Amino acid sequence: MTDTYPSTPRTTALRGRDRITYERAAIHAVLDEAYHCHVTFVVDGEPRVLPTLHVRLGETVYVHGSTGSRPMLAARAAEGLPVCLAVTLLDGLVYARSQFHHSVNYRSVVAHGSARLVTDEALKRRVLAALIVQLRPGRARHSRPPTRAELAQTAVLGLPLEEVSLKVRSGPPQEEPADLTLPYWAGVVPLRLAPGTPQPDAGVDLAPPGYLPGLRRPPGPGA
Amino acid sequence: MTDTYPSTPRTTALRGRDRITYERAAIHAVLDEAYHCHVTFVVDGEPRVLPTLHVRLGETVYVHGSTGSRPMLAARAAEGLPVCLAVTLLDGLVYARSQFHHSVNYRSVVAHGSARLVTDEALKRRVLAALIVQLRPGRARHSRPPTRAELAQTAVLGLPLEEVSLKVRSGPPQEEPADLTLPYWAGVVPLRLAPGTPQPDAGVDLAPPGYLPGLRRPPGPGA
Repeated sequence: MTDTYPSTPRTTALRGRDRITYERAAIHAVLDEAYHCHVTFVVDGEPRVLPTLHVRLGETVYVHGSTGSRPMLAARAAEGLPVCLAVTLLDGLVYARSQFHHSVNYRSVVAHGSARLVTDEALKRRVLAALIVQLRPGRARHSRPPTRAELAQTAVLGLPLEEVSLKVRSGPPQEEPADLTLPYWAGVVPLRLAPGTPQPDAGVDLAPPGYLPGLRRPPGPGA
Repeated sequence: MTDTYPSTPRTTALRGRDRITYERAAIHAVLDEAYHCHVTFVVDGEPRVLPTLHVRLGETVYVHGSTGSRPMLAARAAEGLPVCLAVTLLDGLVYARSQFHHSVNYRSVVAHGSARLVTDEALKRRVLAALIVQLRPGRARHSRPPTRAELAQTAVLGLPLEEVSLKVRSGPPQEEPADLTLPYWAGVVPLRLAPGTPQPDAGVDLAPPGYLPGLRRPPGPGA
């Protein structure tokens, strides 16, 4: 397997090409860091979008949803459902001396291809467990696995990573040389999706397990 | 003006209808809180997506981009570019006792319609200034406005808010009654996009202005 995905017409930008990379490891890292993605597809010639959770297993990104939702129904076709899947992480606000060069730092993966329904029950179970693990390693052991009836209510779509690109902006503002002496503050305010303190459900008297994000005190015995 | 947007076939879900609302104020609040959106459109029958910054002015959402990018070129058509615009805020990770009921808390706006290029120069300037204000009220005064040449390099698309919905999940996990006695921790870990400490660009010796997010010390004289 090569270290990069191929560049195709669909994964080549008309503008901002210098920000695009096809590096497999960098693309996997973005897919793995993000909890959610936007799956876009076409219905009657019109664009549609489904924000949903995803998980990557090897060279496939999986999303899940209700068996009765539009994209899951549409993906029953033998040729699958043509989709464009986007994952965007916002890394910072970029304040330039000129309004024109204000920007954001981000990492944005876009994958094109045909998404297919996962019909193999063992694979479906593996994907759903991976979605739980993505919420925190260790969690799968501390929760009840799906029953057969629950499995039947859940549809899983797989999109092979074949046509995929990563667009990145990072670092300080880019300025016009003439603007560098303007008397304005310029720089970057980093952003990150930060966890807060875990809020137990009613009736839970266990201490929060150590694998939860956002813990500010020693983990409890469930860790 | 009514308090709600109309429900249409495109803004009605086949599943999860109880989570959908059309309340104007709630939809505006999500659009205003988020920095970025995903604009989806169709090219040669295939779905495409553009992650980008947006700002709302009244009943229109504006996005900007390079004049040479695909959607900006496509939106030159008299009838505009049919788009589906999505804004998703992730509010928490929901840990249930059953894997099936694991979820996330979120607020997700989806708007359908035709996006049109903004050709009026005064409106274009107003939108670009609003994009700066969205990065922080006060910032527009502390930066150089765009030149005419910069304005010509920037395309602005406007999407009227007519067919819009908001899907929300909030609160604790929903569990099967039989699962409530399982010996697993359950609850919610809140998430928020948190600013870090401002990082000044090389050559900036002004103190960070008070309007920046993420300041942990008294604002400087630029505030």
